[in-house]
Amino acid sequence: GAPGAGGYGAFPGQQQDPLYGYFAAVAGQDGQIDAEELQRCLTQSGISGTYKPFSMETCRLMISMLDRDMSGTMGFPEFKELWTVLSNWRQNFSTFDRDRSGTVEPQELQQAIGAMGYRLSPQSLNGVVKRYSTHGKISFDDYVACCVRLRALTEAFRRRDASQQGVVNFAYDDFIMCTMTI
Amino acid sequence: GAPGAGGYGAFPGQQQDPLYGYFAAVAGQDGQIDAEELQRCLTQSGISGTYKPFSMETCRLMISMLDRDMSGTMGFPEFKELWTVLSNWRQNFSTFDRDRSGTVEPQELQQAIGAMGYRLSPQSLNGVVKRYSTHGKISFDDYVACCVRLRALTEAFRRRDASQQGVVNFAYDDFIMCTMTI
Repeated sequence: GAPGAGGYGAFPGQQQDPLYGYFAAVAGQDGQIDAEELQRCLTQSGISGTYKPFSMETCRLMISMLDRDMSGTMGFPEFKELWTVLSNWRQNFSTFDRDRSGTVEPQELQQAIGAMGYRLSPQSLNGVVKRYSTHGKISFDDYVACCVRLRALTEAFRRRDASQQGVVNFAYDDFIMCTMTI
Repeated sequence: GAPGAGGYGAFPGQQQDPLYGYFAAVAGQDGQIDAEELQRCLTQSGISGTYKPFSMETCRLMISMLDRDMSGTMGFPEFKELWTVLSNWRQNFSTFDRDRSGTVEPQELQQAIGAMGYRLSPQSLNGVVKRYSTHGKISFDDYVACCVRLRALTEAFRRRDASQQGVVNFAYDDFIMCTMTI
């Protein structure tokens, strides 16, 4: 159909989007999905490819990352945004996972973080990568969990760093809200 | 045996501690356990009682909370410290979970956070509790995950708040290290 052709009800144009099918299959009347519905939706869509489906914890992180109104749910626009980001991360991950083992090496996650434009000290990089490793390897699920949190925490920091000095004055309550809700 | 009676090898006195049995059953030669070993150890010890065993994610958080040297593993002294904290949290949780459903209400987690001495604004409390809820209820595993992160993040904040003003100047790298390694 022509873009923007209406007459399909509340969300003209969305029905033409191939992603809308995955979303609509799990979303309720309110057009929102929670973490469990997101998990089902992503599993059914096959976005993890040959990798294990996303854990509930990682799905919750994905919801939080884009949950500007702190509702605990996600609408279709956020789902589309998530899809784009996830597709990129999966492509990066498979570039590193040449032997299709389903895991990458710590130094590969470090490289990926650098390639995404994050500038971290060797000490921080090391701590971050260790946090997401199991027996010295990083699974796709943990890779995504790491990327989601890094993105969300960096955005939260930037929003508060108005003068772009790389330094933010955090009051305790704001610090906890900003870090515990991710 | 008499306390401190030696002659048992590397760690005299520890063999008398009833907790040492759980720990030694999973620890390797180096006397350290990782998140997977902690999960097995806690499951075997029955500390979750009738509640579901802890998830891998929550076990990782427990390791990180006490991992001062960022090794990703835990020794026996940290395990004992964790045990004390977990026993308290379980007791608090069961006080709230009167009907033994395995879950508590959002306002009960809010009350518990207050009772532990954390002073958070209603907005933060609300965000935190929502993050750990599933369909409006909080399981024991998520309750503990929340308590672990709140404790670890508050300690990280306090260590940087030398003058106890409740405000900390975070450089980006330090902020990421402090929040991403929990």
